[in-house]
Amino acid sequence: MQNFSFYNPTNIVFGEGQLRELDNLVPKNAKVLVTYGGGSAKSTGLLDKVKSELVKSNREVLEFAGIPANPKLEVLIKAIELVREEKIDFLLAVGGGSVIDGTKFICVAACADEFVGRERELMNFGFNPVPVDRAIPFGTILTLPATGSEMNNGAVITDGKDKLPVFSTQAFPKFSILDPTITYTLPAKQVANGIVDSFIHTVEQYITFPAEGRFQDRTAEGILQTLIEIGKKTYENPEDYDSRANLVWCSTMALNGLIGAGVPQDWATHMLGHEITALTGIDHARTLAVVQPANWRIRKEQKKEKLLQYAERVWGITEGSEDARIEKAILKTEEFFHSLDIPTKLSDYNLGEELIEKVLVSLGNHGMTALSEHGDVTLDVSREILEAAI
Amino acid sequence: MQNFSFYNPTNIVFGEGQLRELDNLVPKNAKVLVTYGGGSAKSTGLLDKVKSELVKSNREVLEFAGIPANPKLEVLIKAIELVREEKIDFLLAVGGGSVIDGTKFICVAACADEFVGRERELMNFGFNPVPVDRAIPFGTILTLPATGSEMNNGAVITDGKDKLPVFSTQAFPKFSILDPTITYTLPAKQVANGIVDSFIHTVEQYITFPAEGRFQDRTAEGILQTLIEIGKKTYENPEDYDSRANLVWCSTMALNGLIGAGVPQDWATHMLGHEITALTGIDHARTLAVVQPANWRIRKEQKKEKLLQYAERVWGITEGSEDARIEKAILKTEEFFHSLDIPTKLSDYNLGEELIEKVLVSLGNHGMTALSEHGDVTLDVSREILEAAI
Repeated sequence: MQNFSFYNPTNIVFGEGQLRELDNLVPKNAKVLVTYGGGSAKSTGLLDKVKSELVKSNREVLEFAGIPANPKLEVLIKAIELVREEKIDFLLAVGGGSVIDGTKFICVAACADEFVGRERELMNFGFNPVPVDRAIPFGTILTLPATGSEMNNGAVITDGKDKLPVFSTQAFPKFSILDPTITYTLPAKQVANGIVDSFIHTVEQYITFPAEGRFQDRTAEGILQTLIEIGKKTYENPEDYDSRANLVWCSTMALNGLIGAGVPQDWATHMLGHEITALTGIDHARTLAVVQPANWRIRKEQKKEKLLQYAERVWGITEGSEDARIEKAILKTEEFFHSLDIPTKLSDYNLGEELIEKVLVSLGNHGMTALSEHGDVTLDVSREILEAAI
Repeated sequence: MQNFSFYNPTNIVFGEGQLRELDNLVPKNAKVLVTYGGGSAKSTGLLDKVKSELVKSNREVLEFAGIPANPKLEVLIKAIELVREEKIDFLLAVGGGSVIDGTKFICVAACADEFVGRERELMNFGFNPVPVDRAIPFGTILTLPATGSEMNNGAVITDGKDKLPVFSTQAFPKFSILDPTITYTLPAKQVANGIVDSFIHTVEQYITFPAEGRFQDRTAEGILQTLIEIGKKTYENPEDYDSRANLVWCSTMALNGLIGAGVPQDWATHMLGHEITALTGIDHARTLAVVQPANWRIRKEQKKEKLLQYAERVWGITEGSEDARIEKAILKTEEFFHSLDIPTKLSDYNLGEELIEKVLVSLGNHGMTALSEHGDVTLDVSREILEAAI
């Protein structure tokens, strides 16, 4: 097992009806900015419920609407200015990964006095934490199980054609309310995206090379098995409480640091996927579903032991040559994505060589030239992966 | 899945050599009280290493030695008085569950101004948190993987023949350093105890009734499978780093709230075991190994679905009648304990009916008359369990 630190102070309040805890969770008498995305938080009536809880304890409540999918820096900067002007004490993100990621960035950047007017520079630290020692505290009410942002300290921010990760030690939500019933009204496509996103988060931390992280491996396998068991069910029956609850909890657990502590991590699929989204606008999870199988096929030698372990423990594949078992596991994975109506090839989106060239340029511009658990995914290897994904 | 809250802010710093982080983890310029148990922290040289790290940043360092196994209230009260007199800012527990539990109690009680002179009353709250809103901050350096105390907010305190749980929202360690190599010098008997303790912590939260906690079940099964895989190996080869590291991490994960969030919990085995330890002095884990199989045999109807799941997923038992599969899983569990030289019958300790009568009196005195996930373990059922354990 590799050395690690594991620290995650987010208070998770999980289950039907937990919105009633909001008044206990947000500081009394605070000036609160509620952040959200498009109209669904409003049209479903959730926003009104949230506000009626907040005003119970003498809080002033402001709103910032319109944080878009792939949260855009220019929008976030407006919120940062508002937070400074209004001297906001607490933020409450009502939404999915994009709203929560955007809110994290707002909370950190609003306290980053050295970066006033040049917030863009906070996007330049890659996987290293940005150098801030405080942030405005915030909580979240999750409406879309997918990114895990509700229980971690990372965000992905978009500026033009740049879609980049931002981390801060100060960016853990104080609390996150996870009520599976709040997610019932999601469009099926977003549920499918969330299942695939959670699945890929898990395999990015699991299908690397053996490192004697037995708890981590078993827990990752448990998340994958659960997503396979309940995925199609919750996609087709949104109001089946238990299936949805298992999706929500697995989605959170897939990216809160637990399964990645003490083991190698890949993330090449995510970095390639981010570029595709930035260039084409294809949903994040859908880019991952295209890149991941190709990543495995091209790099099956480097990942052999873990791919065989995945084949056996997650899919029960024990017969055939090593190559055959690995290919069968990849095919089963693709079938699982297809069962959620998620394609696994670039050509399904009418994309090909032309896109690949652009992705490689972007990867180069972003310094993404030594990706993966071994650092061996050069631009040449990225090209191979993308070509295998056509 | 049941509704739940999950909050665990302890910073885990895991791996060989992590003692070097101590100076970064403890507040600078603090007046620190280092707590430990018998002589082993001293004789192994660990205490000297700890002190030399602490003094690097102008800290005053005091010591409190002699926190015994099953930490005794009378000893802890002396430490509480010392903490108040010396105005200690931070405590550092160097030891196993007993030292950490005792230190938690010290940190909470020293701030419980309403309970000065009647600290005993803090033991009367059962599974409810004691009513305090602050505690002296503390960290831990774990020397014995077993109780999970290094990453939770519970303690078990002994006063005469009373051995009782104490919880506080303030009792999470700020950090815990988990260096598997620090545990190499443990006596083999204590390693075996730690494996069994971690195993029973897991099944108390897992073998109850189905509640659609799929992540929780899979993670619990992963801990059990890992303990079975590495148990005998780390018992016999203390310096095999990876086996020991897996024991340490599973032991922490078994009782940090994760696998019990959103699912029913039993704990009858623990409550019966506590009484046996208080009456006889038999090691905690050894009392659990005696009670748990009997608990399963007597209550196999109530636990049927989960015992069958345990048989299949943890032991691979799929053949035979339901009763046969359950009995086989219990026998495999007993064999596993035996492989660690841990007996599973009261008669192995020359105990029988006479002890049972005393245990039942103690359970009655402590209000332990409706235990388990169903609250159906009355004194009569406890008698059946104990008789099946002879």
